Order: sequence, then structure tokens, then C-alpha cells
Amino acid sequence: MDATMWMHHPRTVKMKEVLCDEQRFGQLKSVQSTFSYIGGDFLKNDIRVNLDLDALGALGDTGWYSIRAILWAHDYELPNTVTAFRDPEYNESGVILSCGAFLNWNKDGKVATFYSSFLMNLCMDIIALGTKGNFRVHDFVIPFNEKVGPFYAVANSRWADLSLGCIPEPSEFKIATDLPQEALMVHEFGRLVAGIRNGEAKPEKKWSVISRKTQLVIDAVVASIKNGFVPVEVLY
Amino acid sequence: MDATMWMHHPRTVKMKEVLCDEQRFGQLKSVQSTFSYIGGDFLKNDIRVNLDLDALGALGDTGWYSIRAILWAHDYELPNTVTAFRDPEYNESGVILSCGAFLNWNKDGKVATFYSSFLMNLCMDIIALGTKGNFRVHDFVIPFNEKVGPFYAVANSRWADLSLGCIPEPSEFKIATDLPQEALMVHEFGRLVAGIRNGEAKPEKKWSVISRKTQLVIDAVVASIKNGFVPVEVLY
Repeated sequence: MDATMWMHHPRTVKMKEVLCDEQRFGQLKSVQSTFSYIGGDFLKNDIRVNLDLDALGALGDTGWYSIRAILWAHDYELPNTVTAFRDPEYNESGVILSCGAFLNWNKDGKVATFYSSFLMNLCMDIIALGTKGNFRVHDFVIPFNEKVGPFYAVANSRWADLSLGCIPEPSEFKIATDLPQEALMVHEFGRLVAGIRNGEAKPEKKWSVISRKTQLVIDAVVASIKNGFVPVEVLY
Repeated sequence: MDATMWMHHPRTVKMKEVLCDEQRFGQLKSVQSTFSYIGGDFLKNDIRVNLDLDALGALGDTGWYSIRAILWAHDYELPNTVTAFRDPEYNESGVILSCGAFLNWNKDGKVATFYSSFLMNLCMDIIALGTKGNFRVHDFVIPFNEKVGPFYAVANSRWADLSLGCIPEPSEFKIATDLPQEALMVHEFGRLVAGIRNGEAKPEKKWSVISRKTQLVIDAVVASIKNGFVPVEVLY
């Protein structure tokens, strides 16, 4: 099980319910996910910007969360191809400080983009667009407030009479949690371990499969960048 | 002067002030713009989906507004290249119903993406990301409410102590207008015409240059799609 903490927030469960609501969301068409923050002093010494340590830089850190969000929205169905955006930024030793990519599923016009950066003000957005509805979240990785996670959804939008406006406006959903998402993550880890210890369960493959798929997309982004921003097939 | 009505809303002026505020926004790095709506009956008969009439489909309609938003945010500096996303969708006669592209400026890691569609629930978003701040707007083309246009901005975001949250949260700005943006647009047109009629002004080039640049980016998207999603240089 990887330590992608936002997946354990009850808000994430609620957002998935919205995505799965055929009447209100329809079919998923497009996901855009961004995670950025200003590296600051971190850009000098952190292992994430050291070529000999965790050399995937912003892609391996912030990109991990955004790619996970895209896979999560697609029920972990891998994209057909990944095409990196031109103009990634690097530090002097060649570690990525800013990059993005376009993902496509080769069916029903399903597409996604992500952007990851250590060089932009904090942004943690998912926008998921469906044939009947949308949802947006602006703090998906670490909620602004530990006690409550908001998101915004709208369904069956239409122009008002004479196009004098649009209705309905998106609604805010506020999902409270007594325990922070990090504690819920450790709780889940403990539950899985206890199940094995007590002979009630076998090691669960769910989290390792999700981790591997996330890494496969990251590897495809790296391959696309190294090969001049060509589309790279993603194979499990 | 083209009829891109949202450019005449006082909110657009205010958003530009936010973008230009060096202390609070820093340098612009990334813009993501989406405009989509469900075509419905429109998809059967409208000129925008008829190959012999306005054959640019969703790109020429919704893409126009998103591309304009990107150029507006970049002070109308054209991107270096435009690379269309794979998997555009078409109707049976070959008119685009859904497409997007990646734009890059070849300097300072400045990038943008847009997505335009007649096949997704209404979405009218701009997210602009700077080195010090961000702003978001969710109804940039036609405000939900004709009397007031909101947008959301945040600057100098940081993790709270122990990463138990993020501060500050984005602030809502509400820009009221007595006249709707369409009336303000006609007013501006009248002002320009009256200036010429009264011998006080010459024909103004501003709007025609902006229109032409928008069309050049659209043409580059079309060329990229036709040539297998290669990057296409944008030359004025």
C-alpha cells in the first residue's frame, strides 16, 4: 500500500459516488488534474531534486498525485497512450521541476491532462467532465481544512432563457471527517495487516496494482519526454 | 471587432488586474481553459455542425472562446507551437464535436491547454497559474448570473504548520455590472464607430489583430489534427 493519503479521505468516496451517478454525471469524458507548489529552499537540498536520489522531481512527487487522480476517476483503466507536453523545466542537474502530459483512452473521446510543478503557487485541482455533469475540487491532495473537505458538482446545466445566464450553479458539498486522511490511511494499513495476522485475509492486491499502474504512467511520461514528446503506449 | 462578449464584462478587466499584479500573481506559467456544452438538437441542424457552412464545429465555437482566454492571459503573445490532442470526436460528416490542444511559448516553461466540446455538460473554466498566485473562473463565457460575475484568486499559498492544511484559502471576488456584457460590447462598437464618424479617431486595429491571432491558433489546431497531431508553428 502506498502513502497516497488523499485516497483515504471520506471526501474521495463521496466524489466517486458523484462520478458513478449515471443520471447526474453520465459518462466520463475528460479529467484535468494539477498539483503544484513552490519548492523554495526545498529546491536546493530535497531528495526529490537530487539526480542520485529520487530523480523524478516534480513528476514523481506532484505528478504522482495527479496521475493517481486521473486513474482513480477512470476506475484504474490505463490510458492507451501518454504524450508529454513540450517545454518541461529542469534544474541544473536535469531533474524535472515542471511537466505535464496528455492521456487518451482511444475510445469514446476519453482524455485527460495533468500538470505538475515545483515552480508555481500551490494548486491541487481535479476537474472531471461528464456527458451530464461535472465536478471540481481545489484541494484534493491536502484539504485546506483538516476537518472538512469540500468539492463542487453540477448536473444537467443549461442556458437560462435567452442565454441570460446558466442554471443551475454548481453546489458545494462539504465532507466532514473526525480523523485526518493520514490517520485513516494508517488505520487502513493496520486493518489489512491485522486481517493477515489473524488469518482472516490474504495480502490484498488492490493497492499494489494501483501503485504499479500509477508508476507505469509516470514511466510513460518519462519515455515520451526522452523520445521527443512522442505518444508512448501504456502496457501493464 | 468580433463578438466575443465576455471580453467586455468588467470582471474581465478585474481578472486582468489580478494577472498583472506582480506581487500577488508573479509570472504566468500555465493556463487551462475549457468550454463545453451539450449540443443536443443543435447537433442535427446548426450551421456549426454542417460541413458546408461553419465547419469548424466545437473548435470554431467553444474553442474560439478558450483560445481567446489563453491569448488574453498572455497579453496576446502567440504561442510558439500548438499540438492537438489525440482522439478528437467528429460527427458523421467529419465536423469536430470535441477536441483540445497543448500550446507552448518556448520560454520560462509557459504552457497552456484548452478543451472544447459539444458532448460534455456545460463547463466554462479558466485556471491561470502563476509563480506567486492563481485565479479560477467557472463561468467566463456567460456568467451564471447576468448582474454579477465571480472569480476566485489566491496568492502566496503555503502549507499550514505540520502540513495540517493549506492557507490562505482562495477568495471570491464578485464583480457587479449594470449592463450585461453583450450590451457593453455593442456600446464599445458604437463608441468606435462614433469616433470615426466624428473624425476623432481612426479605425482601431486592436480588435482585428486579436481576432486574427485567435483564428491563427485555431488554424494551427486544425493543421496539427490533419497532420497526425504534430506540433505546428504559429506565425503571424
